[in-house]
Amino acid sequence: MQNFEAFLLENLPTSKSIHPTYEKALQQMLKAGGKRFRPALLLGVVKAYNPLMSAGARYAAYAVELLHTYSLIHDDLPAMDNSPLRRGEPTLHVLYDEVTAILVGDALNTYSFEVLANAPFSDYTRVKLIDELAKNGGLNGMVLGQAMDCYFENRPLGIEDIKTLHTNKTAKLIAASLKMGAIIVGREELAESLYVFGIKLGLLFQIQDDILDVTQSSQEAGKLTNNDGDKNSFVTILGLVESIKEADALALELSDELESFDENLHYELSPLLTRYINRHKNSSDT
Amino acid sequence: MQNFEAFLLENLPTSKSIHPTYEKALQQMLKAGGKRFRPALLLGVVKAYNPLMSAGARYAAYAVELLHTYSLIHDDLPAMDNSPLRRGEPTLHVLYDEVTAILVGDALNTYSFEVLANAPFSDYTRVKLIDELAKNGGLNGMVLGQAMDCYFENRPLGIEDIKTLHTNKTAKLIAASLKMGAIIVGREELAESLYVFGIKLGLLFQIQDDILDVTQSSQEAGKLTNNDGDKNSFVTILGLVESIKEADALALELSDELESFDENLHYELSPLLTRYINRHKNSSDT
Repeated sequence: MQNFEAFLLENLPTSKSIHPTYEKALQQMLKAGGKRFRPALLLGVVKAYNPLMSAGARYAAYAVELLHTYSLIHDDLPAMDNSPLRRGEPTLHVLYDEVTAILVGDALNTYSFEVLANAPFSDYTRVKLIDELAKNGGLNGMVLGQAMDCYFENRPLGIEDIKTLHTNKTAKLIAASLKMGAIIVGREELAESLYVFGIKLGLLFQIQDDILDVTQSSQEAGKLTNNDGDKNSFVTILGLVESIKEADALALELSDELESFDENLHYELSPLLTRYINRHKNSSDT
Repeated sequence: MQNFEAFLLENLPTSKSIHPTYEKALQQMLKAGGKRFRPALLLGVVKAYNPLMSAGARYAAYAVELLHTYSLIHDDLPAMDNSPLRRGEPTLHVLYDEVTAILVGDALNTYSFEVLANAPFSDYTRVKLIDELAKNGGLNGMVLGQAMDCYFENRPLGIEDIKTLHTNKTAKLIAASLKMGAIIVGREELAESLYVFGIKLGLLFQIQDDILDVTQSSQEAGKLTNNDGDKNSFVTILGLVESIKEADALALELSDELESFDENLHYELSPLLTRYINRHKNSSDT
């Protein structure tokens, strides 16, 4: 992923104007690092089936990261999580103001589609990727999940509803990342099974986040932990012990599925996913 | 435009979930009406050159209206204009809360690209339209304009900088609407001149808004007027009399250009534009 990180830094959004801080604010959260988990998934699938397309696929990986980054910026706003810290740095509304955080988020959301519209693929592939990112990152995907998360704060949900919440809020974009990789290499017959795998992976990821939120310090996480208050989380509903059991069970299921992938896909995704699948067992590994 | 209005109402975004107000909030500002000026421009160009494509072009017109509507919702937020009223109705953050207004805006932004990715055009045309909407509605277009507008509140700008501000904030999306019409009918040789015409039209539109903001009542405008405070406006910089002179001069220039359009384009756009070009002369016509 060093390769992707360098690509991202070379392709940061730029904007020349008399506004003294707009361009810097646009770039701030992108440059602040992060796990680049979604790009890694997309690029892993591409590398498994057509390594020659890896360079071009970085544009699609970047688009997903742009959309993900905008969502973090808006989730951190005072009206939502009111988080002072993200990726180890002050959040944009703290560094600048709320206006900047709202507008930078808006800009990165739109920019993700501009990047895909100009990525080095056929028009057919570009349209497929744009549709996939919009559907999973939009009003019946990530945004619905965030709306549910905010609305049902202080209104406890059952376990099925919280799974629906996080399927939308977290899992769909992760699943879309894998599927977009399959679209890029023209393996659309694999797209659906990768998507289903990604949904489960995203749910595991969220259960792990909820676990780490109560077991990890802010310094380890690079963001404020124990900050979820009365939000619905797997830990508040199931308790810590049951959440860890649920995570263990899902981790085992995903490990088995990973083993059943064909050789190339297993070779690419296994090093990445084995680490993530088990991250709730080692709270110092973020 | 009755046709477009009916189309929009039949194609409102839907979202079935346990969230009791999310779907209603998504639809609220779209159903509240509005001039549908950008859709009318796009559809006018299409009708001039290929009326058979008018039905399909409504999807593109809708995408532009979605992006425009998201921008109004975010501009009205407490951190920005803090407007209580829009399109004659309470704004979303008043009706629901800030979270809802932020998320509905985010959702409509993303949805505009989903609509274009599924519009009944060739993949080539879809990609061109998505690129155009994203470039003009994004970080070096509408969002930059809004960022400048907010940042330079209380910091007076010169006339050239305020033109740059409104070229980005207002004119580029209007220009893009005309250009997208040309792209749909495959008249890309007209796209650039229509774009330049649209930039001037957008500037006129903004000068007129600034004029109407001080000459019109809130009831007439369907939004809170005299609410721009210390924002840079043509009226605060040039004064009302000079602003009206500037609007008159630009209106004359645009009328001349409109006369020079070919017969079909003139026939389609003239009824629409003649009314808008002169709207600052008749403050009861919104």
